[in-house]
Amino acid sequence: MNSFGRIFRISIFGESHGECVGITVDGCPAGLVLSPEDLLPDLERRKGGKQKGTTPRQEEDFPIFKSGVFNGKTTGFPITILFENKNIRSEDYTKQRSIPRPGHADWVAHQKFGGNEDYRGGGHFSARLTAGIVAAGAIAKMLMKDVTIKAEVIEVGGESDIEKGLQKAIDAKDSVGGIIECRVNGLRAGLGEPYFDSVESVLSQILFSIPAVRGVEFGTGFAAAKMFGSQHNDTIKNMEGETKTNHAGGVVGGISNGNEIVFRIAVKPTSSTPKEQNSLNWDTGITEDFSIKGRHDLCVALRAPVIVEAATAIVIADFMLLEQQIKKVL
Amino acid sequence: MNSFGRIFRISIFGESHGECVGITVDGCPAGLVLSPEDLLPDLERRKGGKQKGTTPRQEEDFPIFKSGVFNGKTTGFPITILFENKNIRSEDYTKQRSIPRPGHADWVAHQKFGGNEDYRGGGHFSARLTAGIVAAGAIAKMLMKDVTIKAEVIEVGGESDIEKGLQKAIDAKDSVGGIIECRVNGLRAGLGEPYFDSVESVLSQILFSIPAVRGVEFGTGFAAAKMFGSQHNDTIKNMEGETKTNHAGGVVGGISNGNEIVFRIAVKPTSSTPKEQNSLNWDTGITEDFSIKGRHDLCVALRAPVIVEAATAIVIADFMLLEQQIKKVL
Amino acid sequence: MNSFGRIFRISIFGESHGECVGITVDGCPAGLVLSPEDLLPDLERRKGGKQKGTTPRQEEDFPIFKSGVFNGKTTGFPITILFENKNIRSEDYTKQRSIPRPGHADWVAHQKFGGNEDYRGGGHFSARLTAGIVAAGAIAKMLMKDVTIKAEVIEVGGESDIEKGLQKAIDAKDSVGGIIECRVNGLRAGLGEPYFDSVESVLSQILFSIPAVRGVEFGTGFAAAKMFGSQHNDTIKNMEGETKTNHAGGVVGGISNGNEIVFRIAVKPTSSTPKEQNSLNWDTGITEDFSIKGRHDLCVALRAPVIVEAATAIVIADFMLLEQQIKKVL
Amino acid sequence: MNSFGRIFRISIFGESHGECVGITVDGCPAGLVLSPEDLLPDLERRKGGKQKGTTPRQEEDFPIFKSGVFNGKTTGFPITILFENKNIRSEDYTKQRSIPRPGHADWVAHQKFGGNEDYRGGGHFSARLTAGIVAAGAIAKMLMKDVTIKAEVIEVGGESDIEKGLQKAIDAKDSVGGIIECRVNGLRAGLGEPYFDSVESVLSQILFSIPAVRGVEFGTGFAAAKMFGSQHNDTIKNMEGETKTNHAGGVVGGISNGNEIVFRIAVKPTSSTPKEQNSLNWDTGITEDFSIKGRHDLCVALRAPVIVEAATAIVIADFMLLEQQIKKVL
Repeated sequence: MNSFGRIFRISIFGESHGECVGITVDGCPAGLVLSPEDLLPDLERRKGGKQKGTTPRQEEDFPIFKSGVFNGKTTGFPITILFENKNIRSEDYTKQRSIPRPGHADWVAHQKFGGNEDYRGGGHFSARLTAGIVAAGAIAKMLMKDVTIKAEVIEVGGESDIEKGLQKAIDAKDSVGGIIECRVNGLRAGLGEPYFDSVESVLSQILFSIPAVRGVEFGTGFAAAKMFGSQHNDTIKNMEGETKTNHAGGVVGGISNGNEIVFRIAVKPTSSTPKEQNSLNWDTGITEDFSIKGRHDLCVALRAPVIVEAATAIVIADFMLLEQQIKKVL
Repeated sequence: MNSFGRIFRISIFGESHGECVGITVDGCPAGLVLSPEDLLPDLERRKGGKQKGTTPRQEEDFPIFKSGVFNGKTTGFPITILFENKNIRSEDYTKQRSIPRPGHADWVAHQKFGGNEDYRGGGHFSARLTAGIVAAGAIAKMLMKDVTIKAEVIEVGGESDIEKGLQKAIDAKDSVGGIIECRVNGLRAGLGEPYFDSVESVLSQILFSIPAVRGVEFGTGFAAAKMFGSQHNDTIKNMEGETKTNHAGGVVGGISNGNEIVFRIAVKPTSSTPKEQNSLNWDTGITEDFSIKGRHDLCVALRAPVIVEAATAIVIADFMLLEQQIKKVL
Repeated sequence: MNSFGRIFRISIFGESHGECVGITVDGCPAGLVLSPEDLLPDLERRKGGKQKGTTPRQEEDFPIFKSGVFNGKTTGFPITILFENKNIRSEDYTKQRSIPRPGHADWVAHQKFGGNEDYRGGGHFSARLTAGIVAAGAIAKMLMKDVTIKAEVIEVGGESDIEKGLQKAIDAKDSVGGIIECRVNGLRAGLGEPYFDSVESVLSQILFSIPAVRGVEFGTGFAAAKMFGSQHNDTIKNMEGETKTNHAGGVVGGISNGNEIVFRIAVKPTSSTPKEQNSLNWDTGITEDFSIKGRHDLCVALRAPVIVEAATAIVIADFMLLEQQIKKVL
Repeated sequence: MNSFGRIFRISIFGESHGECVGITVDGCPAGLVLSPEDLLPDLERRKGGKQKGTTPRQEEDFPIFKSGVFNGKTTGFPITILFENKNIRSEDYTKQRSIPRPGHADWVAHQKFGGNEDYRGGGHFSARLTAGIVAAGAIAKMLMKDVTIKAEVIEVGGESDIEKGLQKAIDAKDSVGGIIECRVNGLRAGLGEPYFDSVESVLSQILFSIPAVRGVEFGTGFAAAKMFGSQHNDTIKNMEGETKTNHAGGVVGGISNGNEIVFRIAVKPTSSTPKEQNSLNWDTGITEDFSIKGRHDLCVALRAPVIVEAATAIVIADFMLLEQQIKKVL
């Protein structure tokens, strides 16, 4: 259940305040020149801490390769990558153990795992596990030189000006949500399958596994529901399949059509708001006011674009391997 | 790639204008009293044809059981169900073969399958294959008596009044899109996993395999991106996990929290609009005006609620089997 | 659980005395010229009935294509094939319902499925379901022109002369077992993975799903356990990887080495022996003597070679697709 | 491809002479009291080095838990376990790089992975990776208190007296093979499925992934092929399904019947024989005499019983979870 993919497959493990988080990438073609340094630019983007609205917690996030790379190249065997947890202040969380944090998985995890879950900092639910996804995504990107995947925040707190949206949060002493848009260029037509392995199906499966994502839409998305068919249909204008418009967002019938793939995700406001909240106290059985301590992002959407790109790259690499567009030995 | 599920598993097959469409349901518990008649109410809802805005094509849609049921009960082995294609007018489609229909899979299918695809009426891409999904969903519903799943159209052509939205389409001689909302009640907390098998991940995977779906959102969905954290967080008010609000739509950390599950999907306007369109002619290599003949829905969203319910039931039955909330032998 | 394969995937369904048995083949490349007639030679070999020692029951075994083939070619979508059950005498079996037949699945099926299983003629456990496997295997063989797969009976009732072994059974008024050897030529090195997807692992998984198979050995097999390393090791004699001996049976480290693949399976004697037996009567709870009526093979191994070939072809086609040695569109 | 299982799932990684070998166990129920020490007895059995005929290489083999255990209990999330490689003498192997070792995966790995594989000591193919399997098996055993799984060497070098068989090898300055038998008691009837997930299918899949295994047989196995049906059939003697004989080895129709499960595996002689061999030199393209240095077992079968037990426990735990005989939260 913590695995994803058919040929290029990832398995994540670890906890926010345990020894480490990590990922195993299986099915990566042999012969890719790869070093930990290749992953650093994307991992750096995920870290935040330098921009307004992201947590000052600075994990080192250096990827430690434990297997699958030999003489500087991938071997074709599983690549296991660890990120040690060094900068931990678990005591911040232990104090709140009696109150399951609203918006967090504390309550459901307790129900599902009978109280055995590692509750510190979200444990296995923590967005810290996305470090592994970002690492795997960086590897996936290296497999497809002609494809560009670019995600960015296009809205924060309802504002298309990120600074303005963040200021709203700062002024309100609250957290805010945001919207991220991702565009993929350079893909050939033919990726994806009708039905359960459609491009949208597989992408949404992994996108909804990014913490805080509440919606996914392709092309015109929800706005398509308000359009006429003659408006929404994209006229094919040449034998390459280029379309005059791109309301479909590059996917028709579940299959890439060679045009730019476009999709957006909605990210909810950080559950760990600085504001005082009211919630259940497990020990007393009654609700009480409390506030969350610890270091948190005002807007988790700000750190998510690189995660969205990684998730997308993982999906596309897998589709390209399935379609024999990437060789098994490079 | 035409299969879905872990324990309660479905595999679909067939083409719109071939001999039949069908589905195999594997992993259904043994001992469920089941006859073709049990599936008819949901199949009837899928057919349309009686309400304004749905196609007058009337497939018989009678489910023929070929295996897996003995003496009126499921055996625990694969249940294969066929729907014969009787009411076919393939000539309608052959005429347009030189122009890949905009919004349809004609062009991508041709690219992906080298021209070998059955192009008649969308072939394997046809929404007719959802008959099988509805049948499987009806079986899944029978496995969980205390759970209710109810989907309905809440918007057509931008109007919350369905009649008004359809009239807009009729007046414009065009097709329109719509929005469907689905609510699930009676679930226990604990279904779903963090990450790739989250409730949202697995539901969205199957929801995006329903033809014409362009967006999926849970709870407050895209609107969450405009909210403050203190607004969006749902206060847990008692030891049962009931929350004061339900912005999360019943899923936190990928796991059901025992509150109502709520999600919405955006359905694009029917690609087969009655309006004249301009598109590429494959034979000439240049675009031309043309119009689509054949029998089509003005708004495919109208027939989709029962498909959404079926998809949801399939996912939930599978989760409940995984969590041992449904017995393997009833 | 009734599915097998990663890219070239099969799902079987049906019961011996129900409406039909069948199979769905998903992931077959598009563009393969295919008609039901292409499957008949292998299906004919499976039927038996013409040679001494096989059942006189003559199912028609004509494969009815329900999907996935259009204009005489595969479309790339699921191919569903049915075999109708026409020549049924269920009353033969009903009489013995009070005694679970020794060697058959009657007792375990009853335990596992709570008495809901279709018990007539073995139901879903029947070797009749191998008709679907043979059909899928015939398709798989067509995907790899340079590969030859040849299985044959090399021992019956302990005799390497088949006639002599059968006569032993006839004289003893009993059934007998046998050994089948399969040889695959024309494979390139590199198929299979270390560990769980080794050639031996994947082949043995499907081989042990053929009813009555009790053992699988590769190359020298069990005899290897009695050898010295210097005897067993195959000297590589040239840059093509040809070996002087082939004790490994063409697989080293789970991966094909380009030499002939050789393996053997042990088939137990037909459980439905003509001899009188003693077994439990479910209704009385005590054992009694009884004899099995109905039409049965004296030696099921005789009909199995084509099934072994089919299983092997399915595995190899899948490996070759994974290794990109077969194109996704032909 | 390095993963196995449906609910209780394992993924292995690592190389013999890389940083570590390891395993991730996903799907283990929450609430199991577990410490590294619980795994030591089985890991100790795997190590060898103390008995005649096993390699003097003494890895420490201490399991380092990186995730999935909190406050001494499993959390329900992936358990990742590492074994560091400390006692490495890679230079032993580098010397032989120009000659692919007969019986080893050197040649096929080179073909399949284009020369990118980690060739040191077998790399990912090394039996050292079975440390992870033994660890996972030890966890699996802890999930089923009433089930006993016991494997032992029953033959070495063709001798049923292990000492005698080893002495043969020592005298001949050669390596020898062996046979291992495994018996499982305490299982309820009903585990396994007909066809591809039969007990035999799933067990053989994992058993053939243990390095050096060349054959797998259940119950009477290959000897069954020489028997009459009336001899081989096991008479059911009471309502509990107990049989008078157990030629079936506890599995009928792919499903456990409640009697003792019995199977045997054939292990080839250690490929790294002390004897001088003749094989291809890659650099010259011609064969030459050479001998293998390094520390090796005379008979790898001696270390395998605990691996066979582990593989068996992993399969049975998975089947029991599927059949809801083990709870998801303990």
